[in-house]
This record gives sequence, structure tokens and C-alpha cells, in this order.
Amino acid sequence: MTPSPLAPKSYPTLPAIDGVKLAAGNAGIRYTGRPDVLLVECAPGTAVAGVLTRSLTASASVLKCREYLPGGEGRVLVVNAGNSNAFTGKAGDASVARIIGAAATLAAVPQHTVFTSSTGVIGQKLDDAKITALLNTLHGQLSDTAWSEAAAAILTTDTFPKRATVTVNIGGIAATINGFAKGSGMIAPDMATMLAYFFTDANLAPAALQKAFEAANAASFNCITVDGDTSTSDTALIFATGKAGHPKIHSESDSGYTEFQQALQRIMTELAQQVVKDGEGASKFVTITVTGAEHDAAARRIAMSIANSPLVKTAISGGDANWGRVVMAVGKAGEKADRDLLTITFGGQVAAKEGQLNPEYNDEAATRHLAGQHIDIGVDIGIGAGKSVVWTCDLTHGYIDINGSYRT
Amino acid sequence: MTPSPLAPKSYPTLPAIDGVKLAAGNAGIRYTGRPDVLLVECAPGTAVAGVLTRSLTASASVLKCREYLPGGEGRVLVVNAGNSNAFTGKAGDASVARIIGAAATLAAVPQHTVFTSSTGVIGQKLDDAKITALLNTLHGQLSDTAWSEAAAAILTTDTFPKRATVTVNIGGIAATINGFAKGSGMIAPDMATMLAYFFTDANLAPAALQKAFEAANAASFNCITVDGDTSTSDTALIFATGKAGHPKIHSESDSGYTEFQQALQRIMTELAQQVVKDGEGASKFVTITVTGAEHDAAARRIAMSIANSPLVKTAISGGDANWGRVVMAVGKAGEKADRDLLTITFGGQVAAKEGQLNPEYNDEAATRHLAGQHIDIGVDIGIGAGKSVVWTCDLTHGYIDINGSYRT
Repeated sequence: MTPSPLAPKSYPTLPAIDGVKLAAGNAGIRYTGRPDVLLVECAPGTAVAGVLTRSLTASASVLKCREYLPGGEGRVLVVNAGNSNAFTGKAGDASVARIIGAAATLAAVPQHTVFTSSTGVIGQKLDDAKITALLNTLHGQLSDTAWSEAAAAILTTDTFPKRATVTVNIGGIAATINGFAKGSGMIAPDMATMLAYFFTDANLAPAALQKAFEAANAASFNCITVDGDTSTSDTALIFATGKAGHPKIHSESDSGYTEFQQALQRIMTELAQQVVKDGEGASKFVTITVTGAEHDAAARRIAMSIANSPLVKTAISGGDANWGRVVMAVGKAGEKADRDLLTITFGGQVAAKEGQLNPEYNDEAATRHLAGQHIDIGVDIGIGAGKSVVWTCDLTHGYIDINGSYRT
Repeated sequence: MTPSPLAPKSYPTLPAIDGVKLAAGNAGIRYTGRPDVLLVECAPGTAVAGVLTRSLTASASVLKCREYLPGGEGRVLVVNAGNSNAFTGKAGDASVARIIGAAATLAAVPQHTVFTSSTGVIGQKLDDAKITALLNTLHGQLSDTAWSEAAAAILTTDTFPKRATVTVNIGGIAATINGFAKGSGMIAPDMATMLAYFFTDANLAPAALQKAFEAANAASFNCITVDGDTSTSDTALIFATGKAGHPKIHSESDSGYTEFQQALQRIMTELAQQVVKDGEGASKFVTITVTGAEHDAAARRIAMSIANSPLVKTAISGGDANWGRVVMAVGKAGEKADRDLLTITFGGQVAAKEGQLNPEYNDEAATRHLAGQHIDIGVDIGIGAGKSVVWTCDLTHGYIDINGSYRT
């Protein structure tokens, strides 16, 4: 598959994280010649936190993660790509139970510390025997360096792997956060989007980890959309081994919490933006900034209304600074707005203000901006202090090619 | 423009309606070689009713219609295509005022009985002098036969005209309803969709006419979607001259109300479906029937979630009976659902039931159904008695071609 034109020019090498070992291999679920199963094992005492899809038809794995997350301990992660094991009924639940059972036995940990995800086609029975057989092999191959194999094993229609790493200084001690994620269709707001996993040697109690993770997620994965379609498998998890050696962070008020939360938000934002850049068929990365709304939630709904509008997205793909469609999307969002107070900018060019075309608008400059790969759309509602930033991509022929024949 | 593959094989000839005269011509607003302005004049005492976009950035014409509708009398209709006069600020309001003033003078009627609509590009100043100049000519050419010219004058990216006629027996007296509409992008639920006009010689008081129109609209135009994008110009109006001669219908309980309302719903459904069949790039007409939801409103939201899903729409365009994406769209709708109670059908083939693939599912038969032009998707939620039917079209390369370069 040709990488997206928005793919990074280079990929970071993820360092080892004390207490985390990984292995990836091919179980032949759907793909050949690439890893499609990931096994991660973490040291005793590893805290876990996570956010899951709010879909009412969530996959069997998601249901089990929801059940286990309150336990706060995460020792094992198993992910397969190619089959999402969603809408597979009781058989799907049984598959997940068998994978968890096998992994718990191999790692000698309680079942409620084993987390699984499946991504791929919905509604086909998962041949879990292929996965459990491979787990035996993978358990014997665990290493602290297999990060790029791990990031590759979870991909489906992605055209490039999404991985990132940051370090954070917590009271003079350096902690590391590694993360990887997958896209690239069925990407929509209001939950963890698709699959993303983070591992850190920082030392946090599960409640503090969950709080930091939710806050960072709200400002990263929950701010992206490719097509407004919400997956049944959306899962984002973080495992914190605590090996970095700083005093444990128990709550928001503890020293180091803010630094950790900010670093987490940076790496999650980086990966969320990579997911958008690999949106199915994407040719342009679009940042939509809404200011002056009644409140932040109103700003976000307006920004998402613009980001999910097929007419706005096709105009961008065609290089057309069609600000009228932005007006339309503001109008349909259902949030307070006044035609005569709206300001709309493309790449900083004020296209419209006070309810009409800006007489000094330079359409040529805006069109030049639209010809680039990074598009900025600004909307000021002019009635309050609410603001929101959302990232999306354009809608192109590629999206239709990919999704008209996904199962064949 | 090549007509949509879903275009009707033939078009009805609309009969004269006593009390209605029409004329259409070219004002050169955006198009040449086709009519782009419509003038209709109705007899004294004509009742009017209407539904308008709920967009918060509605066009200047919509704002004026909203102001005049409570008056209940409709003597003149002026529509132009090519420029929507939306987001044109005070200048746009002034354009509408000048058109209304000119039309009222020509027809010798009060201004509040003159209704206008504009459709086309958003945010460009409307050269209303071209329209008012043409109105003089059109007023001299009014006839009771110019229905096909009228239906043609309001089109933009439509590939075929949408017109229909029905007769209704009201206490032994035959009344006629004629209607025409336009699509074909920026089509979304929850309001009158784009432009649609109806004329009848039935005799109804404005309040009864409004009630019948709203009920018929809820079951017709409000049940279609092309792209989930809501126009700033959506307007549907009905003019009732009362010339048919039956006793006036003042309320729902009056004789003939039900017959009239049902006939109105038939013609509005026919035109709404034609709008979908001319959805931008449409190659398939899709009927989505949701049953067994918690209540009717829940069923409608689930049906719209399916109908607006880009993944469902691209699967249909690719001829793929991808019922997993239907599950996804049910899950993201936010309405009560239970994975293990869902039933999903394609063309009557039960694809999934009880939370998993139906073992007797005939994928080949479903794929044959998907290869046709008329696609039926059924979803039974299995928890209540709520039901809803929604009509939509597939998402194809044509939509992207049309909308990537609309302004150029």
C-alpha cells in the first residue's frame, strides 16, 4: 500500500521501557507476510487505565476491558488485526475468554489483568485457536526492543505505522512514555478512537493514571474525525510500570502529575494527528479552530459539524476555499450563532466577516493555502469565549475506493 | 449533464390548477440557455403554508418567508437558481426586499403575500436588478400551463426535473395537487429539504393547510438524506387557491382533511424520493427500515445514523452487503440497542440475528440484491415498537467530482 502523502518523513525509534516486554508475529487471521498478533507483558504492580468506545454495539474485547479496567492492574495485552470479533455473539465472548485464559496461564497472572483488542472486519467468527497457538511462541520471544513490530502488528488499512515517544521530568527523574496507534476509517469523536496503546515507567496509582489519561484523551483522540463513523472496537489503554523510581503519584495534587499529564497529552496528540494523516484516502490535514462560541462544548460541536461535513471535506480535497459551506456547517450544528457576527478564515485570510464576504478578501491567497497539505480553517462565532480545535482530513476518491470493496 | 441512472423513465405533465399562473425565464444569474427565475401568481384568497430550514445561518429569503407565513395568504412566489443569497448580510436582506417590492407592485398585492427563495452558491451578492427586470417580462407571460418550465427554473446541480401531480376526492369533488422540487446535495433531515413547491385548488384555511403540510413533510422530506448536510435555504411551500369548490376545510376534524393530507403525503413522498434519486453522484436508491426500537424517534435516529454513515454508503456503492457497518451505525446512534437482539436484512435476506451472522445467510443472494439499483436494508432492534423509514442514496466518486469543484 502506498503511504499517505501526509505520512511522516521519518519514524522515531522507541526506547525500552523498564518493565515492558513485547513480541509480535503472524497468526494468519487475515494477513500474510506481516505481523498480525501482538503480545505485551508488564512487570508486577503495573497500573492500567483506559477509555473505550461508547458504541452500544461494542466488540467482545471492549466489553471485557470495561469489566477489568476498574481492577487497575494491567499485566498482559493481546491485540490481533484482521478480525474485530465484533457482533459475533456468544461465540465472540467465548473467543475472548479463551485468549485471556491462555495468556494468563502463560504469564502466570490473574485473568483480570489481561486486556485484549481485536480490529478488522465486523461479524466474522474469530479463529482464536490460531492466536492462542501463536501466543506460546510469542511468550518465548518477548523482548524490550520489539516496538516497531508491535506498532506494525495492530494495523489494518493504515498506510503507515503510528508511533511516538516522549520523556517527562518528574521531580528530577526522567520517565518515558511510548505509544502506538492505528486508524484509519470508522474514526469519529467522543471516545478513544480505534486502537492506541501507551506504556510508561512512570509511577502512578491507577486512579491518577485514569484521570490523566481521560484528560489527555479529551484533548487528543476525542478531537479527531475522519468520517464521523464510530468504531465498535475503539480502545485506548495505558500501562504504567512504576519502574522510573520517582515517588508514586496518587492524585492530581501530587508533584509530577501535571508534568506527566502534559507529556501524555503531547504524545497522544501526536498519535491522534497521525491517525488523521492516515485517514482513508486523506490528501490534506485540516485544523479547524472555533472561537467565540457560547461555551467550549458548543465550540466543539460546531468544529465537529464542519469537520464531518462531506461538502466541506470535498471542497478541501478540490482545493476550493468554499467558505459558504463552512457557514452551512455552522448553521446545522444547532449551537447558538448569529449570521452577522461570524468570521471565517482560510489560512489566516479573512474570507467572511459580519455576515458577508470580506471586501478585502484575497481569494487567490486562500486558494494557494488550500493547494497545500496543511489547511487551517478558523471560525469565530463572536458571541462568547468557548473554543475548540479539531483535526480532520479531506474526503477523496481514495476513501470511496478503499471502502467500496473492503471485504473483498 | 447526464441524468442520474435513477432518473424516472418518463415525467408527468402537470395539469392546470384553477387560480395559479406561472412563467419562467432566464436572468443570467449564473446559468445561460435555461430558465433560472420562476414567477407564480395565485388568485385572491389563496392560503399558504410552509416549512423552513432550522439552520441558524438561514438565507435572507428564508428569514422573510418565516416572517410572512403566519399571515396565511400567498399570492406570489419568486424563485431564482444559481445564487442562494445566503450569508450576504444586510445587502442580501435588501435584495430580498427589492424583489418582494417589485413583485408586489406588478401583481398589485400586499408585500406580506409575496414569498421568495434563492438557491445556489452561498456568500455571493445577488444581482437582484437582473431578477426584477425579468419579472416585468414574466408578469406579461403568465400562463396556467408553464409547469415544466417552472420545475426546470429552480434546478442547480440536479440532473433531472422533479415534478408530480395527484388528484384527491374531497366529498365528491376532485381537487388537484401539483408539486415540483429540487435537490441534490446539502440534503439532510429535520426540515424541509431544499426547495419544493405545491399548488392545489383544494379549499383549506391556512391553519388546516399548515397542519396537513407539516404532517406530510414529517413523513416525506424529513425522511430523506443525501449527505447529512443541511442547507441554509431549505424551503417547502404550498399554495391552496380554494377554487375546487368543496366546502372549506378549517380543521383536522372537517370532512376531506384526511383525504387531502394523505394525497399530499403521497405527492411529497414521490418528490422527496426523486430528490434522493438525483442525490449528487447517486447510483443506488436505498430504503432503510428500522423496527423494534424503543420509540419512533429512536428508530428515526438509528435509521438516519445508518443513512448518513459514509462507510455504509460506500459499501452500498461497491455492491458489498457489509452488514457489520450497519451494526456500527446502530451502535453509534446513541439509542437503546442490544447486540444480542439485533436482526439485519439486505433485500429480505436475514444477514444477522441474535448478535451474530445468521448461519443460513445467503451472502450470494444479498450481493445480487446489492448489485441492483433499489436497495432495502432492514434493521429490527428487538426491544420495542418504534419504527421509521428513511430514504437515501449511495456515496460515489460522482459526489466527490461534483463537490470538489462546485464553484469553478
